[in-house]
Amino acid sequence: MRYCAEISYLGSAFCGWQVQPNGYTVQEAIGTALQRLFHKKTDVTGCSRTDSGVHARQYFCHFDADTNLPVERIAAALQFYTPKEIAVLKVTPMADDFHARYSCTGKNYIYRLLNAPVQDPFEIGRAWWVKYALDTEKMNEAAKAFLGTHDFSAFCAANTSVEDKVRTIRECAVKDCQNHTLEISITADGFLYNMVRIIAGTLVSVGTNEIRAQDIPEIIESKKRAYAGITAPACGLYLNKVYYN
Amino acid sequence: MRYCAEISYLGSAFCGWQVQPNGYTVQEAIGTALQRLFHKKTDVTGCSRTDSGVHARQYFCHFDADTNLPVERIAAALQFYTPKEIAVLKVTPMADDFHARYSCTGKNYIYRLLNAPVQDPFEIGRAWWVKYALDTEKMNEAAKAFLGTHDFSAFCAANTSVEDKVRTIRECAVKDCQNHTLEISITADGFLYNMVRIIAGTLVSVGTNEIRAQDIPEIIESKKRAYAGITAPACGLYLNKVYYN
Repeated sequence: MRYCAEISYLGSAFCGWQVQPNGYTVQEAIGTALQRLFHKKTDVTGCSRTDSGVHARQYFCHFDADTNLPVERIAAALQFYTPKEIAVLKVTPMADDFHARYSCTGKNYIYRLLNAPVQDPFEIGRAWWVKYALDTEKMNEAAKAFLGTHDFSAFCAANTSVEDKVRTIRECAVKDCQNHTLEISITADGFLYNMVRIIAGTLVSVGTNEIRAQDIPEIIESKKRAYAGITAPACGLYLNKVYYN
Repeated sequence: MRYCAEISYLGSAFCGWQVQPNGYTVQEAIGTALQRLFHKKTDVTGCSRTDSGVHARQYFCHFDADTNLPVERIAAALQFYTPKEIAVLKVTPMADDFHARYSCTGKNYIYRLLNAPVQDPFEIGRAWWVKYALDTEKMNEAAKAFLGTHDFSAFCAANTSVEDKVRTIRECAVKDCQNHTLEISITADGFLYNMVRIIAGTLVSVGTNEIRAQDIPEIIESKKRAYAGITAPACGLYLNKVYYN
């Protein structure tokens, strides 16, 4: 039987999602927990590769298991073997062709900024601290330019092997939140490698008047990574919602 | 010249405020930073002893220094030598008789609870996770019984040497917040050792129907620590506001 697990995790505790030789990852943590629970090596496939330090408020992964455990008890049993920096929210039986990554129809990311002259100790590892005053009105004007279907080559890490860089952004907005924090919310059918972090870095440059809001369409059209802003640090990025049909 | 520093700190990074032989404390961190800044051993006196793991959104401490540094630059200079888990928000010159602890006229503490069936990875070390459903209406009814001037011996760690255990609570309320969190807010002229944590533990027992709201006045009157609830864990406690005339 194929199962889908809904989890959330504190990214600062892990070297990203995907198993790698040099660090403890979420995939390794879940894989080890599944093996201990089912007494059998069990592969787990995630909806997205998140980088080291990136957080997930909602994340889905799938695995196949043959178990007598009632489905309503699998989540708690899996949580028992999983470190506390990962919450196992729900486990659901799925059709055999469900795939956490390929069945996904869209994702929403939040990028959190702390915009204050002094660092907030409670935001370390949880928001990008930008001490220069940001013009959120200009940032929102720039955010609108990302909406729609575009080739986002300029907003993709230069070393990517993906060929089709056309994606559709359904929502892109900057919101003032409490305690001097800003949230950039971006929803799309799919994302290129580092896309949200480069958009966030670019919007911050708009907010500090280094890039003009009206130049965003031209930057997109250029397809040149060098014309966009910097890649914002991982700590501010949250995978927030994952959509399936 | 006497100075007052307004700071905030992430309690999970420190073994409390007060210097001690077996752990790194906020007082040690600030004292070391002042010594490096002024090239002279400088005592620092805090407004309150906070326990290991207790957070402070606002905290004041005072020190005496003889410096040519313009006052508006002292905060940033002090921050330079201070670990990032402490924010130095402001440094102000004060009258010689100002005392961070004795001049204080009141404090507001927030106790944060995560009330959800599953732990939230983002709340580890930042809220007390209570998985059983809490009746916040009953908790608020109980909270009202703490208002006013009482001998709070029943809500004070048993091994305290303080003699006068009469304090005046001006505000005590439980508020539903977002993401399954509750905040208990308590304002008083002063607090006994572990007072907020014992009140929080007692209010949680009211919320789970182990203690009846109408029994709180009797528990206060008993002056017996054993009649109150448990001492809630340090991780949920935040010194939130400190008042001076």
